[in-house]
Amino acid sequence: MPSRDLTASPLLTDLYQLTMLQAYRASGMNDVASFELFVRALPAGRNFLLVAGLETVVEYLLALRFADDELDWLGATGRFDPAFLDSLRDLRFSGDLDAMPEGTVAFADEPLLRVTAPLREAQLIETRVLNLVHYQTLVASKAARCVLAAGGRPLVDFGLRRAHGAEAGLLSARASFLAGFAGTATVEAGRRFGIPIFGTMAHSFVQAHDDEAAAFADFARAQPGNTTLLIDTYDTARAARKVVALARSGVPVQGVRIDSGDLAAHARQVRRILDEGGLASARIFASGNLDEERVRQLVASGAPIDAFGVGTRMNVSADAPFLDCAYKLAEYAGRPRRKRSEGKATWPGRKQVFRRHDGATMAGDLLALVDDAAEGEPLLVPVLRGGARVGPPPTLAALRDHARAQIAALPPRLQALDAAAPYPVEIAPSLRALAAAVDAQTARQ
Amino acid sequence: MPSRDLTASPLLTDLYQLTMLQAYRASGMNDVASFELFVRALPAGRNFLLVAGLETVVEYLLALRFADDELDWLGATGRFDPAFLDSLRDLRFSGDLDAMPEGTVAFADEPLLRVTAPLREAQLIETRVLNLVHYQTLVASKAARCVLAAGGRPLVDFGLRRAHGAEAGLLSARASFLAGFAGTATVEAGRRFGIPIFGTMAHSFVQAHDDEAAAFADFARAQPGNTTLLIDTYDTARAARKVVALARSGVPVQGVRIDSGDLAAHARQVRRILDEGGLASARIFASGNLDEERVRQLVASGAPIDAFGVGTRMNVSADAPFLDCAYKLAEYAGRPRRKRSEGKATWPGRKQVFRRHDGATMAGDLLALVDDAAEGEPLLVPVLRGGARVGPPPTLAALRDHARAQIAALPPRLQALDAAAPYPVEIAPSLRALAAAVDAQTARQ
Repeated sequence: MPSRDLTASPLLTDLYQLTMLQAYRASGMNDVASFELFVRALPAGRNFLLVAGLETVVEYLLALRFADDELDWLGATGRFDPAFLDSLRDLRFSGDLDAMPEGTVAFADEPLLRVTAPLREAQLIETRVLNLVHYQTLVASKAARCVLAAGGRPLVDFGLRRAHGAEAGLLSARASFLAGFAGTATVEAGRRFGIPIFGTMAHSFVQAHDDEAAAFADFARAQPGNTTLLIDTYDTARAARKVVALARSGVPVQGVRIDSGDLAAHARQVRRILDEGGLASARIFASGNLDEERVRQLVASGAPIDAFGVGTRMNVSADAPFLDCAYKLAEYAGRPRRKRSEGKATWPGRKQVFRRHDGATMAGDLLALVDDAAEGEPLLVPVLRGGARVGPPPTLAALRDHARAQIAALPPRLQALDAAAPYPVEIAPSLRALAAAVDAQTARQ
Repeated sequence: MPSRDLTASPLLTDLYQLTMLQAYRASGMNDVASFELFVRALPAGRNFLLVAGLETVVEYLLALRFADDELDWLGATGRFDPAFLDSLRDLRFSGDLDAMPEGTVAFADEPLLRVTAPLREAQLIETRVLNLVHYQTLVASKAARCVLAAGGRPLVDFGLRRAHGAEAGLLSARASFLAGFAGTATVEAGRRFGIPIFGTMAHSFVQAHDDEAAAFADFARAQPGNTTLLIDTYDTARAARKVVALARSGVPVQGVRIDSGDLAAHARQVRRILDEGGLASARIFASGNLDEERVRQLVASGAPIDAFGVGTRMNVSADAPFLDCAYKLAEYAGRPRRKRSEGKATWPGRKQVFRRHDGATMAGDLLALVDDAAEGEPLLVPVLRGGARVGPPPTLAALRDHARAQIAALPPRLQALDAAAPYPVEIAPSLRALAAAVDAQTARQ
């Protein structure tokens, strides 16, 4: 049995990382390398990214080490020489990390983070760093669109059951909360991150009772003060009348949930029944295959829906289930590096993003070299130095505030759900010149 | 800090499961319930599902228990009464599980598994059981299409970096291997499941060297007998000539990888260079944004590609990143149950799928009640009885053989990648009659 949590194992990586490490060691190569993580292009129809996942990367790097049983297993594969495996025993992350804080708005080609460390450390971590930042940024970017569509109505993450595995379920709760969701149904996310947890009831609860009204009464008795009743198991309007009858019998009801059918039409009908029954304060919660487009339509229709449960389509980012991201060598041994693969060429050197504002609104970014003196706010900030944090970890609440401010600072056209004219990201002349110089050096390759 | 691996925590669930359990306990409801997990409809363009994830469900159920720190945390939320939390302390899974073996081909509406257990146990596990079966079936179904497209050429899972988190990366390696992939790049999947692991080299390895030929030589020296060189960092054809020169210097080279550009054109050019250079035995490996459509095109073009690395688009099932699956109450306390929610009505009662064959080919399925005497092979088989396995766990190799046989038994039109006339799944008259009877009973609701 593995010695520890899957999420911390350095064997959760691509084989070639270890193969390359062995080759680097054999060649005596371990100078300082800088790798940068970026997204090559925004998905179709998207106007921005909301960066997330940095804190999990920091925790991964701080805990990075091979356990004895992991090294034993690698040895048993016969692929690695014992001296190399022995060198892994003391491997720790001793390098620097610079990154955009979580909740920062970002665009294509901009480094979201930069790792500067001895080559072997910086290479080894590639797979897991991408795995963490890719998914959380994907979800936060999708969730931010849902938040924009909801126009201030609360959203709750309902998606654990169809998220891609355990960690996706857990981290999508965090990423969507960061992006402005009110909370999640995932209990473990409440425990690990302090995110508010929400829950109503399932259809099975109603079905297990022989009588729907009895199910409502049982649930209300067991959940006083927190009674949201699911009313679409059989007939939504009739169920709403049973809710009214229950309330009239003296049992307080805080809300109802509708999960199927024409949500706008049902919400109007149910609102009328509840209002006429003296339940004007009861809230209507809607769920069922929602995403930002459906939320926008429901809000635009004026449907009397107070809050939304958004699950699967947010957690898997259904319209764009992956980002074209990469973690690429930008500098090694003091020399800038660039690959020129067709359609996948990268910018060389250690880079910084400088953001200008026009009043409170973002006006344009400049992708430049890290030592360029440029106008605007540098977005990548120091996070680790020599393998240690430069400051205490930020609270999730503070990151959520940062995300809200970042989204509010987007030019209005980019806050719309439809694809807009792209945000201006310029390439600094210094960077273009460096790319040309590197190309000249490697042209003979 | 949590006491254990995220993947085993019963708090990795929706809050409403716990809320409902408390209400069931308050009402004294804990008779035997049967829940069934099924997919409401195949994704657009898909002809079949390949079932996966059962073994992880079994492991989850066998290990199910609340840890003290988990109960303490639940208590601190103030949402639960102490006697209820105390009742969770001794909760174990004591029920029955019937399921289609992993690697079975399945269709819409067919139960992939059935849980029969005291209501509280059967309800509590809903979220995680769905989370496990949904993702692995999603990936196995996508991977099976890649295998069909590759026409016998080996496929390797390259997708950990953009899989949705740690568990998705690990389990997609298993699900794709089950579906017929040759192996994975994910080291931890090799350790946990014994799946063959593969790796080549990254662009960063070439970039970190000042000279591409030196990079190739270094790598070959460190990986004798397992040298696959990545040749598209700068200029693919020139790099192929460097590979020939390296081999002529006496260094064996087993293969090359191409990761960008027009893969078919590059493969032809590289094949010619390698053949002319005496490297006819060196294999060409292609990767880069591949999925079953691109693999099919490359195979159809006659490109001399020996093996494919398939990543992101398989691991996230990019064209269909989720399945519309559900886990629904079918029977409680001996009475069949059904929900009638619009567009989401379910079939009542405990069901079985009977599959008929015409020679070696699947001819049609019958969705019937479990006690119906029907023609054909019953697909759901006993897995757990009274919370214990009925037999030893199957080997992954045996499941992979089963998957291969199942896919081979599909009618030829369903083995094609394009959407075909649906496989016939009939509803037994007994089941229709039961649904009508249940509707009559609940019509007054």
